[in-house]
Amino acid sequence: MDRIRVTLIGAGTIGLSFAASHLTQARDCQVTIYDTRPDIKAYIYQMLPGYLSNSEETIQVDSLFASGRLRLAASIQDAVQNADIVQEQGPENVSFKQAVWPEIEAHAKPECLFWSSTSGITASKQSESMRSSRRLIVVHPYNPPHIMPLLEIVPGPDTDPQLVEQAVNYWKYLGKVPVVLGKECTGFVANRLAFALLREAINLVNEGIISVKQADTIVENSMGPRWAVAGPFKSYHLGGGAGGIEGFMKNVGSTIQACWEDLGVVNMGQGWESSVLEQTSDAYGEVKTSDLRERDQLLKEIIDMREGGLGNIPLRK
Amino acid sequence: MDRIRVTLIGAGTIGLSFAASHLTQARDCQVTIYDTRPDIKAYIYQMLPGYLSNSEETIQVDSLFASGRLRLAASIQDAVQNADIVQEQGPENVSFKQAVWPEIEAHAKPECLFWSSTSGITASKQSESMRSSRRLIVVHPYNPPHIMPLLEIVPGPDTDPQLVEQAVNYWKYLGKVPVVLGKECTGFVANRLAFALLREAINLVNEGIISVKQADTIVENSMGPRWAVAGPFKSYHLGGGAGGIEGFMKNVGSTIQACWEDLGVVNMGQGWESSVLEQTSDAYGEVKTSDLRERDQLLKEIIDMREGGLGNIPLRK
Repeated sequence: MDRIRVTLIGAGTIGLSFAASHLTQARDCQVTIYDTRPDIKAYIYQMLPGYLSNSEETIQVDSLFASGRLRLAASIQDAVQNADIVQEQGPENVSFKQAVWPEIEAHAKPECLFWSSTSGITASKQSESMRSSRRLIVVHPYNPPHIMPLLEIVPGPDTDPQLVEQAVNYWKYLGKVPVVLGKECTGFVANRLAFALLREAINLVNEGIISVKQADTIVENSMGPRWAVAGPFKSYHLGGGAGGIEGFMKNVGSTIQACWEDLGVVNMGQGWESSVLEQTSDAYGEVKTSDLRERDQLLKEIIDMREGGLGNIPLRK
Repeated sequence: MDRIRVTLIGAGTIGLSFAASHLTQARDCQVTIYDTRPDIKAYIYQMLPGYLSNSEETIQVDSLFASGRLRLAASIQDAVQNADIVQEQGPENVSFKQAVWPEIEAHAKPECLFWSSTSGITASKQSESMRSSRRLIVVHPYNPPHIMPLLEIVPGPDTDPQLVEQAVNYWKYLGKVPVVLGKECTGFVANRLAFALLREAINLVNEGIISVKQADTIVENSMGPRWAVAGPFKSYHLGGGAGGIEGFMKNVGSTIQACWEDLGVVNMGQGWESSVLEQTSDAYGEVKTSDLRERDQLLKEIIDMREGGLGNIPLRK
């Protein structure tokens, strides 16, 4: 790609974190920021360095402005008219999103990509008042976006698949991990998964089985590091040894079912097992001893590294 | 503590992993293994080195046998009669556990500690045929135990609190992270939390929103590394900035509730919020900028380290 022009609508913590991602990872891009706060320039001088400091060399805000790699826009029109990408992280309410996108659409180039960082308002909802809903895509980060690799790419039913591909390519170019969801859903995936675990954590606290702090200690010393190395399906596949995830389910399936029933949740229904087991085996194949050895080595490195660090966040209570 | 005598009943993958934990972390302990498999000695020569290799210096199985730090027992009586700790990881069924404990009890010293590695059969259930149920404690590891720090300590209603304290002290001495649950529950805590997330992951795969592999990719690049650094309550507390977890709940509480309703689960009921929010604030206090900086630094280190590693486990697809 040539010099890419990225416009950020809204410069809260997510906006600044994205600004840092673009500026540090796509060395040839120009970032334009539009935000209605009156002290926007002073605010950027104060806050942006904290997000830039995680890159290998420290980038000065002064030199970003001087070189034209960073600029402030005075209006939406000024902000978007030359942009290749418009990324929106304004207030999280439907009326704001439905008002801002038609205005962006009126001034942007026809090929400009439209991305919303919303954590819950779908592209189909946001685009209701737009002339065309083919361009709008949800690009949902995991906080903080300048550090976390994940981006959930959530097209609406009318989104042009080619524009989804362009979004994926851009984020890969930045070294991120974009994942395209099959369809829109409440809360998107990462939060849904986290909230499902949170709900059970709250339930166990409520029941007097653990305290909040114990819940955190348990997660930090078990599935946290485990899932940093291999997600749940892959972990259970590895956990089943030569039998893979099917072997695992044979061993502990009844405990899983008992826990699910205890959750007070509706039955999972018939038929999920064959599809999930098949997908897992297809994705990861036969478990080899070397797979387990590498998992363990990486786990040990994460745990050891964590122990070395960080007085202020006591990881082991 | 003096030279500690630990007896392991059952030498499957969990048993060998525990053997390695004791032998490498408690340099003064003696480990006795009892397992009915006929080729037990050859099996230990073959398998144990894989578990020992994660320690800083390689320990030879030969020298462990020669020095008497590792020995095999020919019977339960022989295995347990001089033991300070008996740790059981036999078959995961009630009848085995209920049969083996009275036999152990009959031959062990009165002050010997009794620990079961079961993933689901409570101490109160296991001890039904014992003369006394005051000694039996579930010590549930997270796989693989020689690497993962967590041990869930689950006493029964009759367990002597002093013996719980001794268990906690021993595992802390080994550098592990023991967490004592308030009471017995189905599946204990770590698995319940993981299975709650697994259930929602299966649901989203079922709905065609993500594939199994995408589910893993999402977790590996979002809550995995995040929760390796700070558990869910602490993360949301940090995520709320100056407002802490209350600020976080104010911002995204309605999305959380919408996701929970979508899970098809029963309502969480009234009253959980004040207790959970209060416990979180008490545990972690006011969020300081330095807390966030340290979280981000550690997260970045984990993510960077992971990127460097491991051809065979492709962490970024």
